[in-house]
Amino acid sequence: MKKNAFYAQSGGVTSVINASASAVILEARKSAKIGKIYAGKNGILGALREELIDTSKESKKFIESLQFRPGGVFGSCRYKLKSIEDNLKEYERLIEVFKAHNIGYFFYNGGNDSADTALKISQISNKLNYPLQCIAIPKTVDNDLAVTDCCPGFGSVAKYVITSTIEAALDVESMYESSTKVFILEVMGRHAGWIAGSSCLAQDSHPGAPHIILLPEVTFNQNKFLAKVRETVKKHGFCVIVASEGIKNSKGKFLAESDSKDAFGHSQLGGVAPRLAELVNKKLKLKNHWAVADYLQRSASHLSSGVDRAHACEVGKKAVQYAVKGLNGVMPVIKRISSSPYRWEVVPAPLTKIANVEKKLPAGFISPDGMGMTKRARRYFQPLIKGKNEDLTTINYQAGKMEMVPKKLKAWR
Amino acid sequence: MKKNAFYAQSGGVTSVINASASAVILEARKSAKIGKIYAGKNGILGALREELIDTSKESKKFIESLQFRPGGVFGSCRYKLKSIEDNLKEYERLIEVFKAHNIGYFFYNGGNDSADTALKISQISNKLNYPLQCIAIPKTVDNDLAVTDCCPGFGSVAKYVITSTIEAALDVESMYESSTKVFILEVMGRHAGWIAGSSCLAQDSHPGAPHIILLPEVTFNQNKFLAKVRETVKKHGFCVIVASEGIKNSKGKFLAESDSKDAFGHSQLGGVAPRLAELVNKKLKLKNHWAVADYLQRSASHLSSGVDRAHACEVGKKAVQYAVKGLNGVMPVIKRISSSPYRWEVVPAPLTKIANVEKKLPAGFISPDGMGMTKRARRYFQPLIKGKNEDLTTINYQAGKMEMVPKKLKAWR
Repeated sequence: MKKNAFYAQSGGVTSVINASASAVILEARKSAKIGKIYAGKNGILGALREELIDTSKESKKFIESLQFRPGGVFGSCRYKLKSIEDNLKEYERLIEVFKAHNIGYFFYNGGNDSADTALKISQISNKLNYPLQCIAIPKTVDNDLAVTDCCPGFGSVAKYVITSTIEAALDVESMYESSTKVFILEVMGRHAGWIAGSSCLAQDSHPGAPHIILLPEVTFNQNKFLAKVRETVKKHGFCVIVASEGIKNSKGKFLAESDSKDAFGHSQLGGVAPRLAELVNKKLKLKNHWAVADYLQRSASHLSSGVDRAHACEVGKKAVQYAVKGLNGVMPVIKRISSSPYRWEVVPAPLTKIANVEKKLPAGFISPDGMGMTKRARRYFQPLIKGKNEDLTTINYQAGKMEMVPKKLKAWR
Repeated sequence: MKKNAFYAQSGGVTSVINASASAVILEARKSAKIGKIYAGKNGILGALREELIDTSKESKKFIESLQFRPGGVFGSCRYKLKSIEDNLKEYERLIEVFKAHNIGYFFYNGGNDSADTALKISQISNKLNYPLQCIAIPKTVDNDLAVTDCCPGFGSVAKYVITSTIEAALDVESMYESSTKVFILEVMGRHAGWIAGSSCLAQDSHPGAPHIILLPEVTFNQNKFLAKVRETVKKHGFCVIVASEGIKNSKGKFLAESDSKDAFGHSQLGGVAPRLAELVNKKLKLKNHWAVADYLQRSASHLSSGVDRAHACEVGKKAVQYAVKGLNGVMPVIKRISSSPYRWEVVPAPLTKIANVEKKLPAGFISPDGMGMTKRARRYFQPLIKGKNEDLTTINYQAGKMEMVPKKLKAWR
């Protein structure tokens, strides 16, 4: 007998999370074992609240168009399930909703917090003796998931950051003699410097920026930083800096820490660039400008990487294939076979090895002075940004039908 | 007898200023009246210092490639010549350099400060009886030049801002229920709100953002602003704001004023977005994110508008044609013939009508509440962002040969 599937998006969205959604739905529609595919409205909250979007009402054309659509089309959320011990009721509610809607397949599209949730749900379904195939689908601009060679979402944000760095550097190069000498671009990356690190590929293009890359993996040393800015301006006339939002001082404190925390209990960051600018102003008296890319970087589908989109589609497709094969508590991960030419495949990996693990930049990727990247890093990043993007700038993104499945249960809470 | 030409870039660069440079050089190479085309190294400073780049040494391929290259390839500068009365020596030096290098054509590619400089040089050349055809070529992302319907550079920055607003709005829409409810994008525009205003075209795409546009033309009213944010979040769940860097309070003070000034004596701005975010935090307690596009917006050739590039090329070409026809003290300006279908032509306009005049958004473009745009504004903006852009993201920008013309004079100063 056919079982229905549930798909949910989790955490910060990316340029290609909808590409994974598209692939999941298209592949599941082909399967003789899967009935309807329901999407959680606003992620896992949609399951808890029994707010299920019936994707069978959406046209094939709409589902296909999701490949190129930024944001999370069914809604995502920042909502972390507590441990089973602390909040058994939440897990029981999920199973109750799954039961009520004959859901036998659970696809959770997110980062390491979400892998943890998927793992817990797979465990509770065993405990409560409710058969469920739990598959986590990788997604994060942070590229910090263990086991997988890279994460869907990362290649596109890397491409955005590299392109922006090249373009801004050409701008600064034109004007430094009588104007801005230091430019700072702040990018995402709370604990891992993959995004900031990827900007090293901008150095392949004229004029060879960024000159300084600041990473969360390397303690921020104000004197060394200022000395390198001074030296770079002396040598090249100007200095372009890409700074990760998550850089910390020697006391382990974020340079840009604000008081607010997100729903996962993480400190909310933002504003490293203006702080560095202030430092350059005060200590070096060099005219500077700064940009904070924020959401622009993770929703820039117009600059998405073709390889990244291919990854996002393939992990979505494989997730469905694993589920119908009866796999449980796994994630389809990307395995690199070779860098040049770039060859890769998708294989299953157990969530126990992925949940809650944060993969940082390897030491071998970071240059000796801590403010640049090595050749090994460049070889790693290079293939991930390839693949021509479509001209998406004239797309008029449509709302889907988003028809809700009638509720069968009492309201949650 | 053939006379040489001098071309210089001035002020902040744009995505398409090099397209104008390309057109000037290619058109001048065709002219029987023009000898060599020299480009000022770092704009007008290149003329004062007798630092002339011999563009005849550059390949046709390189000059053609400039069409798609961000930044100012020959170097630009922020250097405003004083009045003739205050600093006659500077003008005499320019004429001395022009004489020494047999320069009879002067092309100055910039905004309204530059139009003023070109006008003064055309006047002094008359006074000193040195024959010179002075043509100013329009360029500014700010779109604030008088007479011309629009300015090369503006359509591309508008396209960048519109695209970024749509993408960020789709991101926020996915997450607002459990995360960010207010997103603020800060864009350029010191005294005129053309850039912020153009973001209204993002409203044509799902999900209809921005909800609020803040313009320098409208005094910032904190209470009205906060009320509209609150109301928008109540109605739509989230609120996207595009804010011009130049918004001012009722005392006429920039919200984001810093202490430093640029070479033209203008206050240096930056940081409106974090101030608005702070306000939303404190007064409304709504989770928010903000981005500052800064140079990214004016150097984003990868998102340049085809129409904008066509404008930039045509004004460059016409500038040369006017010069060889003997016109002096004029600027080729864009005249709109019709909006739909978009038809336009380039005609000469006297610099006396353009120099130092700042064209603000017409009152008829701004909605009654001062935080949105009218239909008339939309009709104006619509054609300027059209035209597919190339995939520029894989371009490896090359340095030119940049061979300097041997100096003949004593060093300046």
